Amino acid sequence: MTKTDVVVLGGGPGGYMAAERAAQGGKSVTLIEKRALGGTCLNEGCVPSKALLNSAKLYEHALHGEAFGVIAENVKIDHAKVVKRKGKVVKALVSGVGSTMQANGVNVVMANGYIKGKTADGFVVEADGKEYAGENLILACGSEVTTFPLPGLEEGLKSGYVVTNREILSMETLPKKLIAIGGGVIGLEMASYFAMIGVPVTIIEMLDKIAGPTDREISQILMKNYKKKGIDFKLSCKVTAIEADGVCYEENGESKKETGDLVLWATGRRAFTKGVGIENLGVEMNRGAVVTNEFMQTSVKGVYAVGDINGKIMLAHTAYREAEVAVNNIIGKKDVMRYNAIPSVIYTNPEVASVGETEESAKAKGIDVKVAKVSMRMSGRYMAEVEKGDGICKIVVDAKNNTLIGVHMIGSYTSEMIYGAALMLETHISIDHLKELVFPHPTVSEVIREALFEVK
Amino acid sequence: MTKTDVVVLGGGPGGYMAAERAAQGGKSVTLIEKRALGGTCLNEGCVPSKALLNSAKLYEHALHGEAFGVIAENVKIDHAKVVKRKGKVVKALVSGVGSTMQANGVNVVMANGYIKGKTADGFVVEADGKEYAGENLILACGSEVTTFPLPGLEEGLKSGYVVTNREILSMETLPKKLIAIGGGVIGLEMASYFAMIGVPVTIIEMLDKIAGPTDREISQILMKNYKKKGIDFKLSCKVTAIEADGVCYEENGESKKETGDLVLWATGRRAFTKGVGIENLGVEMNRGAVVTNEFMQTSVKGVYAVGDINGKIMLAHTAYREAEVAVNNIIGKKDVMRYNAIPSVIYTNPEVASVGETEESAKAKGIDVKVAKVSMRMSGRYMAEVEKGDGICKIVVDAKNNTLIGVHMIGSYTSEMIYGAALMLETHISIDHLKELVFPHPTVSEVIREALFEVK
Repeated sequence: MTKTDVVVLGGGPGGYMAAERAAQGGKSVTLIEKRALGGTCLNEGCVPSKALLNSAKLYEHALHGEAFGVIAENVKIDHAKVVKRKGKVVKALVSGVGSTMQANGVNVVMANGYIKGKTADGFVVEADGKEYAGENLILACGSEVTTFPLPGLEEGLKSGYVVTNREILSMETLPKKLIAIGGGVIGLEMASYFAMIGVPVTIIEMLDKIAGPTDREISQILMKNYKKKGIDFKLSCKVTAIEADGVCYEENGESKKETGDLVLWATGRRAFTKGVGIENLGVEMNRGAVVTNEFMQTSVKGVYAVGDINGKIMLAHTAYREAEVAVNNIIGKKDVMRYNAIPSVIYTNPEVASVGETEESAKAKGIDVKVAKVSMRMSGRYMAEVEKGDGICKIVVDAKNNTLIGVHMIGSYTSEMIYGAALMLETHISIDHLKELVFPHPTVSEVIREALFEVK
Repeated sequence: MTKTDVVVLGGGPGGYMAAERAAQGGKSVTLIEKRALGGTCLNEGCVPSKALLNSAKLYEHALHGEAFGVIAENVKIDHAKVVKRKGKVVKALVSGVGSTMQANGVNVVMANGYIKGKTADGFVVEADGKEYAGENLILACGSEVTTFPLPGLEEGLKSGYVVTNREILSMETLPKKLIAIGGGVIGLEMASYFAMIGVPVTIIEMLDKIAGPTDREISQILMKNYKKKGIDFKLSCKVTAIEADGVCYEENGESKKETGDLVLWATGRRAFTKGVGIENLGVEMNRGAVVTNEFMQTSVKGVYAVGDINGKIMLAHTAYREAEVAVNNIIGKKDVMRYNAIPSVIYTNPEVASVGETEESAKAKGIDVKVAKVSMRMSGRYMAEVEKGDGICKIVVDAKNNTLIGVHMIGSYTSEMIYGAALMLETHISIDHLKELVFPHPTVSEVIREALFEVK
């Protein structure tokens, strides 16, 4: 039996960050990962999709440079090469995570881990026939694609006619027509990539809007932009079956069918908790996810859960921060997880970036809000760089405290701007003080400043 | 005589912002501008240069997309079209400033203004034969290109062989070889544009580094990148004369000559104070600039000076904020100008963005600092989007107070990231608290987070 202070189960963003920080905090650490360091995010999620989307953006630039005085002929995108480059980038980053683990003295075990329970030696996890015990156990098993009994789904996944984020990111040949089931971030980013490189795409979404909790107006602007790229939308449509050559769905009570040669299953993800022996711990669960408190502790003392497995906000950067909170509490440094200022991004062209409450969500919570909205066309840089842009910036202010509680943007660079807005929320600075902040001119970021001055 | 509460002399960023905010604050305002609303920044500076640089970036993308799987043939850039589009963008933005003035009821006078002095009616400015009086006068006359007695300079400027930022932005034909005198922001942005579209460029700089006060290491990385684009540098070289076909300079005491068919004069700018009657006010001057205090007041009660004319930090966004401080003090709202968190950006590819102290400047002030540096290659997005990138992020921490006092970056998106760093400086939040901020993953902005964790 190998004993370390901490055992981390899962090597994705939550797991590897927990391992790194615990080691930096003076703890001995074992990290157990069954597939690849970096988890879903790095291997088959956020990072590889960014490589694809960047190539598609370059392709669009080359295709449509004429308005900007740039002319190119026979512009082509080599999808297989894009996928190959993506693989190289992922490999380099995964190896970077490995080096970080090594540099911090983390004992990495590449095997399936199974929790046996608590013993006198601590929490015991079995992996590859060996036992690893730790005084503290951090659950970071991530998430898996949600499925439900839908005629044809299982067969489709087996035959390869239906793919998830995992397979679609590595396909070297292009479909003739893609049907995406689910208009959330994963569905949108992938649909957008394929549409941008010329594949006809239809998105079938159950809700009456795309992009989940995104501000309704921004979600509409986004949809308008996607339509221009050739994406077709079936909103408020319920998928009823997957057949050999298409997807059946109901629209206003009417049965319809959309045909296509590839289906992307992107209806969402759920906490991954099966087959790893979590039941041997006796931790409290809720709707399949491990329940955690503000210190990332589960109901069992010494056991923490970070990242997608706790089902709170399934984003890699949430996992990072949760991992740090868990480790800080393990090493005796008080730290509390807050979820009010966690940004989210859709990395398509245009980009969408949000943090905090939307007008809708704030009102649902009974918060008295003031909302200000500005067009990105007030930004000199946006005007210089974007033709006929329809980007906006919308801010939501807590009227009682005169503080910012939400920032929502659609337009270029917003993915890289949103962390500053998160800082505005995090610090609870008054709108009056925020107005004194100097933004560089000319930048798109100035739209936030402009919106602050629009709050009446 | 037309009497308003406030007279603003100059319609650039400082002037038009002062006019807008004063009007919003309930004051009647006259704004006098001799050339075009928007001033140097909008008409012949920051904004038009961004339009050019954006086209050059698109051109580079189309040319060098192969690594990313994007292939294009016969890629060309139509410089005349780029300039034409730039003109359109500028026109739209200038007209936007005009509309804002109109919407706020500002009396805009398009004529040369001449200050006659203080009378019983207030401060009187003559323009186009009429007199305008205001209880308060805001000087916002901007800046002009610095010249000095240099053999051939005057003749060169007259013949058009030597151009400044004003003329070069509107030239529709390309030089065969450009010589830029001055390796500051203006020289670098223009040199970079012409080099990117295929014009050989030589930069002659008096100092031993480019990019003025920029962190030395970042300035070196920038130079390395520019060299790859075909820019040749003559550092620590003093220009001694401009001849009909080139520029003479001294390098290590040796006389040399660089030939070329166009010379860009980009040695700097100085406060513009001549011929506008400033001497009739009796305000205190220092090295040709109007002296101001932290309220933007000059030595004469009721007279304020904002923007380049006070010679402090010659950037449009400094002028914006100074204008707001001046107006707030006029309308009786206490407000103080701070210069510690003003970002600056060089908008080339790669971009450079900085705010606050460099290691060098902090040490010169005797501040005990800790410095942390990270490579941008730790960012998954940077790796996904940039081939062989050498970007870095460097942060400077006040060791005594454990607060951030400087952030310096070279790499993609940094122009749009730097405002958040400015907020970190502005709020004096501790490094420990900043570490709790959640940055979206994967973004380049995460390099700031990473650097925070590198502070030992």
